[in-house]
Amino acid sequence: MGHHGAVTRRWNGWGDESIVAKVPREALAHLERLVGAGRPTPDARLGDVLETVPAGRLPGHPLVSADPEDRVRHARGQSLGDWIALRSGQIGRVPDAVARPTSADEVRAVLDYARSAGARVVPYGGGTTVVGGLAPAELDAPRGAHPPVLVVSLERLADLRTLDETSGLATFGAGVTGPALEAALRAHRRMLGHEPQSWEFSTLGGWVVTRSSGQRSLGFGRMEALFAGGRLEAPAGRLDLPTSPASATGPDLRQLVLGSEGRLGILAEATVRTVTIPEYERVVAIFIPDWEHGMTAVRHLADARLPLAMVRLSTPSETRTTLALAGRRRRVGLAMRWVGRRGAGDDPCLLLLGLAGRTRVAEATAGEAARIVRKQRGVPAPGAFARAWEANRYHGPYLRNALWDAGYAVDTLETAIDWTRAPALAAALVQALDAGLESENERVHAFAHLSHVYSSGTSIYVSYLFRQSPRPEGTHRRWLALKTAASRTIVEHGGTISHQHGIGRDHQPYLALEKGELGMAALRDVVATFDPDGLMDPGVLLGDTR
Amino acid sequence: MGHHGAVTRRWNGWGDESIVAKVPREALAHLERLVGAGRPTPDARLGDVLETVPAGRLPGHPLVSADPEDRVRHARGQSLGDWIALRSGQIGRVPDAVARPTSADEVRAVLDYARSAGARVVPYGGGTTVVGGLAPAELDAPRGAHPPVLVVSLERLADLRTLDETSGLATFGAGVTGPALEAALRAHRRMLGHEPQSWEFSTLGGWVVTRSSGQRSLGFGRMEALFAGGRLEAPAGRLDLPTSPASATGPDLRQLVLGSEGRLGILAEATVRTVTIPEYERVVAIFIPDWEHGMTAVRHLADARLPLAMVRLSTPSETRTTLALAGRRRRVGLAMRWVGRRGAGDDPCLLLLGLAGRTRVAEATAGEAARIVRKQRGVPAPGAFARAWEANRYHGPYLRNALWDAGYAVDTLETAIDWTRAPALAAALVQALDAGLESENERVHAFAHLSHVYSSGTSIYVSYLFRQSPRPEGTHRRWLALKTAASRTIVEHGGTISHQHGIGRDHQPYLALEKGELGMAALRDVVATFDPDGLMDPGVLLGDTR
Repeated sequence: MGHHGAVTRRWNGWGDESIVAKVPREALAHLERLVGAGRPTPDARLGDVLETVPAGRLPGHPLVSADPEDRVRHARGQSLGDWIALRSGQIGRVPDAVARPTSADEVRAVLDYARSAGARVVPYGGGTTVVGGLAPAELDAPRGAHPPVLVVSLERLADLRTLDETSGLATFGAGVTGPALEAALRAHRRMLGHEPQSWEFSTLGGWVVTRSSGQRSLGFGRMEALFAGGRLEAPAGRLDLPTSPASATGPDLRQLVLGSEGRLGILAEATVRTVTIPEYERVVAIFIPDWEHGMTAVRHLADARLPLAMVRLSTPSETRTTLALAGRRRRVGLAMRWVGRRGAGDDPCLLLLGLAGRTRVAEATAGEAARIVRKQRGVPAPGAFARAWEANRYHGPYLRNALWDAGYAVDTLETAIDWTRAPALAAALVQALDAGLESENERVHAFAHLSHVYSSGTSIYVSYLFRQSPRPEGTHRRWLALKTAASRTIVEHGGTISHQHGIGRDHQPYLALEKGELGMAALRDVVATFDPDGLMDPGVLLGDTR
Repeated sequence: MGHHGAVTRRWNGWGDESIVAKVPREALAHLERLVGAGRPTPDARLGDVLETVPAGRLPGHPLVSADPEDRVRHARGQSLGDWIALRSGQIGRVPDAVARPTSADEVRAVLDYARSAGARVVPYGGGTTVVGGLAPAELDAPRGAHPPVLVVSLERLADLRTLDETSGLATFGAGVTGPALEAALRAHRRMLGHEPQSWEFSTLGGWVVTRSSGQRSLGFGRMEALFAGGRLEAPAGRLDLPTSPASATGPDLRQLVLGSEGRLGILAEATVRTVTIPEYERVVAIFIPDWEHGMTAVRHLADARLPLAMVRLSTPSETRTTLALAGRRRRVGLAMRWVGRRGAGDDPCLLLLGLAGRTRVAEATAGEAARIVRKQRGVPAPGAFARAWEANRYHGPYLRNALWDAGYAVDTLETAIDWTRAPALAAALVQALDAGLESENERVHAFAHLSHVYSSGTSIYVSYLFRQSPRPEGTHRRWLALKTAASRTIVEHGGTISHQHGIGRDHQPYLALEKGELGMAALRDVVATFDPDGLMDPGVLLGDTR
């Protein structure tokens, strides 16, 4: 994918600096009609920000850097709150140093160093968290009143350690990114198939500790299924998780590390279950005339337990916005009239189905899926629609850069819920966001898709866009108002506060509603067992501030 | 299945008293050649045992029975250690009373009663544990020196509470058995598809807290996948587990309840993910000339990720023994010569493949599976072999009764391991058991199958048979010697100590090797959070005796 070499990451936005997304003129016109003309705000310059960074407060160590740019580049993730801070240059406290261990033993040495220096530790994979997973509570406190913060980056712990080709078990340093991991496996005709939108930069360790889900998790499995075991270096000691294919030996400790978000220690190595690259891989696109028929179709696909690799259904609104952002208005218009005449109407939903496996089984699956979809008035789309999605799988976050430059803030959020309550929650979420800035007389454009379906329910993924305020505090206030309205809507409808992004600090206030008092107590006790002195990521996940 | 009505369970063996298995004469001859002639030992009479039961030491309560027969019938499970105790009448301590709550609130009332009476609590589902899950450490202590024991049977908490037909979520009282559960769902054209060999009597709650795996778990999912959420009544309070289809909200608390084996409290209600009964369900049988080719075939089936519902491969030795136990020697002999002439040789492995799903996809899957199996010299078997397996799916444990009556003790054990190490472990297990009584000049007949395959590895299930000693202590000593030899072999090869049976007390000494020091500490802390006074099942799972 060309991301293994010397990529310079944007310090205050998404991705590779050399990739500059463009928003087509007609898309800007579309957005202007929806929420008004964007009013771009000026970005802070990195040089100016670096001048404000105070000296780090940690002693020297061969594995540790106190370089101000290093520290600024590891201060924040990709939550919209992080973006507003970075773009405006008002990034608050920065960590005191960045460590880069190259082995599990060096991870342990770095933990010992942090403890003896009285520092708090923030593990850092790809820095792609969109839920505030990287800013520990300590960074909020006034300087002097808080202990020093050491970020531990896993970027040098990123190699393929062992590959057992008979069992398909591959052990990597936890800092390996998506492209590097798949390239290492492809050399052996194997693959993992974990492809979140952050894939280019997010890491295996990050996927595990946030319970990540990839675009084709229906076929290849969520991280819970792919993570076979590994080595966690905790302040209290080492936890080696064996890689049994399955086990009935009491509660599964892997499931404590999955979702631990840095609180139990640092996952240094992870073993994943890989598979032989399937002989057949394909995405097909279908248009369905309305949302109700679309949801029924995908629910029936899930209940039939067809071996699909992906099911992804956009609302008519998201379909329109996606097509506008894709540009090529004339060609898209012609194609849409073509599918419209075949029965998809003039405001359809886009449905994408992924297939992966043996050719014969995949073709039978496609046939059965087509039969189910046809009953809901689905119309096959020209191949260009599926190809466009495949070509742009990881492009969404780059558009966020371009839209920001045009004066628009973009954020996404997600949940999962049973099928019975899904339609009401999806509608309520879009409505809550659309109306979320009425008190400021600002409009919001929210749109949704279902990207992960299960027999009992579905994820709901919502994107929303609004105009930046002239001042960063104003933009931050708008974001908080929208995020709070959406989170409350999710909770009130009985959805989970996150299907795939995690808790971090942004979702922390809603966690106890799902876990219950006894569950929260158990999680706190487990954290105390692994990290008795409270070194790890205070505030993240549990909201405790020791 | 005819098991919903008034079934009388054997008090000292498996299953429905009215079902009496027979061992064909040629099978007895086969076993005699292998381990010598069985020497039956006399069974204790229930009436005699009841006369030795002392009065219970718990105060009266409307939900609680102190009837001696009730207490004897809830004292033990189906571990071979339990069998030897029950058959000989030397059953040690019996619990002091049996409670039968009919609602979650009554479960809580019973826990309060137990606490105020200073009793220890043993939750009881179907009583089918084969790993000593029902005898808490307290029952070993001399009478007087141990607190009273209250068994809490969930048999009256066994109804279908709610069924959401859109989402397929069904909530049952945790004491529902397999047949009752499937009958309730079948009325709505739905099914769970969880079919362990104990299915007729084991319960939903028991499946959850032991991480059970059914015969078709490859297709329908292990209990980890089927258990959506539920209500746990713990001494410290109530834990409600929400039923999200998937979630990234920190560590998954369901995964603490799964495998908790009664230590965290009593699972009163459980919600499961059901599916529409598939339009196509079938089992096909294939013979493969030898074990090496058989293992390669099933590994390739798993790596191809074919949507099979079941893959089950017997060694040549197990295949021979199964065919001998099936009787009908002439017909089987003719059929075996037929497949032998087609290339399966004269000592083949039996491979069973389960299909379930849409007809078109299932047929394509069968075709691809046949192609993979053919490369390993597989030969399709006459349909009678698959039909015989289907007819006898739950019959194995009944044979144990008949073999005991013929003087033979039978036990099973199981593990899971990656494909690379599976052949050596399977061979070593059979060898360790075969040679395990050499010091007594007794022979053992051990044989194996693979019943659950994964991309990264497989379960290994071993049955073993040996002659009873004239005295129960001798039989018990033989069993312990064999169980210990097998457990050590599993541990030394890197297998998990249980793939599907759980820990109980029989596997407890081996648990810390998998969980590690830090992991065991975390589990103890979680137990202490849910059960601060140590009411629940002391000794089980963690081996602690507070």
